[in-house]
Parts: sequence; C-alpha cells; structure tokens
Amino acid sequence: MINGIEFAGIASGVKPSGLDLGLVFFREDVNVLSLYTRNKVKAAHILYNKKMGAGPMRALLVNSGCANACTGKEGTDDLGAIAEKLAPLLKIKTGEILFASTGVIGKRLPSGAIIRSLPLLAKNLKDTHLDSFSQAIMTTDTYPKVVKDTFRGKKEYTVIGVAKGSGMINPLFATMLAFVFTDYPVAPAVLKRSFVHSVKESFERITVDGECSTNDTVMLFTKRGPEDPQGTAPFKEALLSVMQNLSMMVVKDGEGATRVAHIVVKGAKKKEIAEKIARRIAISPLTKTAFFGCDPNWGRIIAAAGDADVPVVASKVGIVLQGELIVKNGLEVPFDEQALKKMMNKKEISVIVDLNDGKASFDIYTTDLTYDYIKINASYRT
Amino acid sequence: MINGIEFAGIASGVKPSGLDLGLVFFREDVNVLSLYTRNKVKAAHILYNKKMGAGPMRALLVNSGCANACTGKEGTDDLGAIAEKLAPLLKIKTGEILFASTGVIGKRLPSGAIIRSLPLLAKNLKDTHLDSFSQAIMTTDTYPKVVKDTFRGKKEYTVIGVAKGSGMINPLFATMLAFVFTDYPVAPAVLKRSFVHSVKESFERITVDGECSTNDTVMLFTKRGPEDPQGTAPFKEALLSVMQNLSMMVVKDGEGATRVAHIVVKGAKKKEIAEKIARRIAISPLTKTAFFGCDPNWGRIIAAAGDADVPVVASKVGIVLQGELIVKNGLEVPFDEQALKKMMNKKEISVIVDLNDGKASFDIYTTDLTYDYIKINASYRT
Repeated sequence: MINGIEFAGIASGVKPSGLDLGLVFFREDVNVLSLYTRNKVKAAHILYNKKMGAGPMRALLVNSGCANACTGKEGTDDLGAIAEKLAPLLKIKTGEILFASTGVIGKRLPSGAIIRSLPLLAKNLKDTHLDSFSQAIMTTDTYPKVVKDTFRGKKEYTVIGVAKGSGMINPLFATMLAFVFTDYPVAPAVLKRSFVHSVKESFERITVDGECSTNDTVMLFTKRGPEDPQGTAPFKEALLSVMQNLSMMVVKDGEGATRVAHIVVKGAKKKEIAEKIARRIAISPLTKTAFFGCDPNWGRIIAAAGDADVPVVASKVGIVLQGELIVKNGLEVPFDEQALKKMMNKKEISVIVDLNDGKASFDIYTTDLTYDYIKINASYRT
Repeated sequence: MINGIEFAGIASGVKPSGLDLGLVFFREDVNVLSLYTRNKVKAAHILYNKKMGAGPMRALLVNSGCANACTGKEGTDDLGAIAEKLAPLLKIKTGEILFASTGVIGKRLPSGAIIRSLPLLAKNLKDTHLDSFSQAIMTTDTYPKVVKDTFRGKKEYTVIGVAKGSGMINPLFATMLAFVFTDYPVAPAVLKRSFVHSVKESFERITVDGECSTNDTVMLFTKRGPEDPQGTAPFKEALLSVMQNLSMMVVKDGEGATRVAHIVVKGAKKKEIAEKIARRIAISPLTKTAFFGCDPNWGRIIAAAGDADVPVVASKVGIVLQGELIVKNGLEVPFDEQALKKMMNKKEISVIVDLNDGKASFDIYTTDLTYDYIKINASYRT
C-alpha cells in the first residue's frame, strides 16, 4: 500500500469472464516515465500516451483481453472517448489519464462495455485493492505479479511493482505490461537514466518465446516535489530490485514453462558478442525443448552459439551445465548422462558458456519449450 | 538411375538400429560444387572436404546418427582413417573421397564400426541402390527424399537429387544434407552461379525451426568433359526444379509438422525488407502455433512483421489468408472466423502480406509448430 494511490479491478466484459479492467488513481499529481515496445507496429495506448506527455498525471486505466492494436484512428479515438467519461468520475482532466492494453491484436476495444463499467470501477478504488488490479491485467498469466520494497531517504518510502506476462515475451523487451509506483518524490530528469538502466537489467534480460509484442509497456509513476535527494541512491537500488524480481516472476510464469534457464555467456571479446550469443541460445527451440526433456544436449547449445552471427572459435568453448563442466576446448568432457539428466530435472537450469576469448559477459533468463506452450497458443483466441 | 553412379546404404551401427551409412561411387571422375553451413561451428566433414578441393572425386560417404561436429582434430582424423580404408576397396585414391554426416553433435564417429562395415558397404554398391542410400542418410525424417528430372542437350541427361531433413532447419540455409547427381558433362565454372542461385531459391526458402546446423551441406556432382553446351540452359532449369522439389519435401517433412505455410511478403520498398519480414514471420512460434490451431490470428502475423527490424507502416498493411482478404490498411476486414478456420485446416496455408509500400517481394515456406515437434526434440538423444 502506498499512501495516495488507489487501485481497482473489475470484470467489465472485455473478456468472456474474469477481471479485465484495472484502474489506478493518484490522489495527487504524479510524474511518469515510460518505455514502450520497439515493435514497428504499436498499440493504440502507446500512440495515445505519447501524445499525453510525461505528466502530471492522475490516473491509469488498463484492460486485458484486447490489445487495441492495429485498430487505427478508431483505436485511439476509443481511448479518448473513455477518458472523457472517466475524467469527471475521478474529478480530474481528460488529459491526466494514461492507458495500457493487452490481449488479442486487431480487435477494437468494446468501449461501450468499458464506459458502462467505469462508475463501478471508480467506486471500487481503494488503497488496498492492488490485488484486484493485479488480477485484472492478466491474460495467460497463471498468477498475479506484485513486488514490494521499501527504502529510506529522509523517511521511509515504498516501491510497488505490478506486471503481467506471459507469452509474446522477448527482451528488447518483454511482451508485457509493468507498472511501478512509489511515494518517493523525485524529478523525472534525475531518474531517466536509471529507469532505462533498470529496464535493461530486468525486463530486457528475459525471454519466453522470442516474440516482441505491439503492446510492451513499462511505466514508472513517482510523486512530485518537494524532493528528497537523500533517498535517490536507495530508490534507484529499490527500483532495480523491484524490476528484477518482477521480471523473474514473468519469466517463471512463461507460457507453458516448467523450468527457467539462466544462460550466462562469458569470456567474450565484447559484451555485444556475449549478448548476441546469449540471446540466440535463449530463443533456440532445440535448446529449449532439450531443457524441457532434461537432455544435456550441449551440441544444440554450441550450434545456437555458432548461429549468432558473431565470431565463435569452437575449439575454445567451454560449457558448464548445472555446475558440471561438460565441454572443454570445444570437446565433450565425459560425464554421467543419467546423473546429469537428474540434475536438470529442476525448476532452474544453469548454463554457462565460456568463449575463452576475452573478459566480457552477458546473461539472460529463458524458459523451456513445452507441450503446454503449444496448447496455450494453438487456441488462444477461441 | 544414372549410368556410372552406384549407391549403397547399410546398417553399420552408428545408430542403434536402421540404415545409417550410405556410399556413392562414381565409376569415372566427377566435379563437385559444394555449399556449407554459415554456422560458425562447422562439422568435421566440412573442414575435411574443404581441404580436399573441388575434384576430381570418385566417392561420397555419408552417415546419419552422428554429426561428427565439435569433435576437434580427432573428428577430421577419423575421416582420414576411414578414407584410407575405403580407398583400396574402391580402387581409388584416399583424396578422392568426400564425406557428410548428420546426427547428434559432440560425439565422435564410431569409426571402428564404420571401418568394419566398409567391405559390406562396397559390396552393396549398385546403380539401382539409390533407395537404400536415401534411407541411410535419414535422421528424424519420416520418408526418404529423392527427386529425378531429365532434360535434353545433344542427348538426354538425368538429374537426381537426394536430401534429408528434418529438424534444425532454417534457410541460410536448411539444416540438411542434399546431394545432386547428373550425367551431364559440364565444367564447374559454368555452373557456379546457377548452383548458388538454385540453393538460394530452394533450400534457403524453407524453415522448420529457425535453427541453423553445424552440418548443412549441399553438393552437386557433375560429369567431367567433353562438354555439351547445348544442354546448359535446360540443365540449369532442371537443377533448380530438382532442388525446389527436394526442399519442399524437406519442409513438408519438418519435425512434427502437420502443415506447410507459404509466406509471401510483397509491396516492399526493397527485396531485403520483404525478405526480413517473411523470415521473421516464418520463425515466429506464435504464428506457427496459430497455423497448427487453424487460428486466423493475423495480429500475430503483423506483430512478427513489426518485429523484423525494418520499417513497417501498419496502416498500409494488407493480409490475405487462404485467399481471403482479412486485413486492409492495417485494419481487420470482417470475416467469418469459423469458415476461415475450416479453410485453414489444410496441408497448405497461404499467407500474403502486402506492405503497399513498393514493388519488391520475397516468399518462404515454413511449418506449423506442434506437440510432435516438442515430443521429437525433448528426447532426441535418448
């Protein structure tokens, strides 16, 4: 709970059943920092929010079940119409409302149903209703994702992060919505770099299926003045920690995932090389199915590394799987396959690829690729 | 059957069961053109063959069940040792033998077992044994892949292509082995460009899982002199046709595939833009699971297009699925979802994405992503 921030989540009918509409109301003006998808096709809420600017803001309306992407001018007009109805209910200005959507692409928002639900939604607003908000933004997520942290400046402050996954997840960044709230008063200019840095080190370090969505959104809402510079450093730490914890919740709840694999590539000449190789391994269907099958099939890992379009000297490569050195100088170190299979039958798999070619490194988290991913996605719309 | 070319395929014990060792013997010298994987990690046979040069050659030994990749100096030495034993059996020189391997990465060839099998293999050589050769090179393939064509120069000539898939398939190119044989006498220099072109227009136009292997190999074996220039143009046509037919057999037999989708991207400013978008759509797990589920989920197609790192103007995009216009100017054209689902329940799916931004186009074939892909690959090694 953060003093001054109220949440609500209700069922408005965007989805056939379940909570699908969430609202955050800020009793006082807040500043907003946002990062949006790098997909060339962007959802209506991104186009809309960008016109609204950085604040001060008073409300955030989020729906699940409909991405409101590829909906053209009508898609952004729908948001304008909703804002006009929501503003008087909250006694704020139309321009003080931001939006986010997630769900199926290409369908217009059922704005009639949403507008009809707004009075109930506004009535539900409460400091303590974070739970229903966090549920209302879920799609194929199997659990809500909320992280809380506190830190001290002149006094104690709180940071709360809420996110949803769980498919179309790829770094640069994850296909998801994430919102971070705090009662710490700070100017956006002070935070910009560390906000971007925190996103890079959290949501851009996970992948589920290599898919970058039209809707990816990370927003940070901070209190306006009087500032408390004493808290800046601890706040930045808390921000990074909250985002990292949230991103781990997202990847662990990746569609159909039974395990999370931590891919570390080290010994690279440059960080960019380590990053390309780590990302290539992390999206490899053959590597991910091997994780699912507890198969210590390191050939797939090295083949993915070799396909990353950066130099790899096979004869230098070492691979450590679950702490066991299984490849040295590009060659297999004899290992007990049955024992290693057993060791892989865990929630977490650790893969370290050492290029032995320099000092740079990069790491990323990915999921296994399972029957359930197919099940979820072969019939998502219907 | 081609006069002067003998085939054999036997079970040598590389695999626990089934044919796994194939031999091609050329009664007269042949020239060879080869294209190998662009993966930075290359199998032993590629490193070995490159040292052997372009011919004249007399034999090709192919094994399945072991990729002989990431096996270091020992891996190429094993091939040298096998060549030394095979050469006297065929009464040719050690340096006249080429190799190809496919299977699990990181394991050394069981060269003892292979060497012990060579006399039987050589004894099995026959003009008519193409069938057992085509079976011996298979891994997860469900059927052998052979294509035959004839054409006329001064006389009638034959082209025969043999290939294997069926996972780790991505263009640039497919993870597969493909061998093309002909009795047409022609200098390699005359063919080089059209060989590369034919590969680009066939094996580089298919993908199964976006994985580029360490072993990809395409080889063309042609007769040596006296040339017949009259046949050059018809031969080039036949070569392209054989490779295109082979590559279609490979993609149709993609691991776990139930359908093949033909992705056409047109209306691009440049061919490179169309190609990047087509390839991005073709490897998208969400698009491929939608094909599996007969889900006309065009949002996934346009989201993949937007994630190709090239300009896309969403408001110009049109999408035609199974001949039905379902997206115009980036917006959904109302369609009967149930009817379209039924139309998608076919062996072949056609997707046309029109960027309406220019005149360039590119097309590629991909598979759907299914439970069986997971099944095959979660337990391939064991």
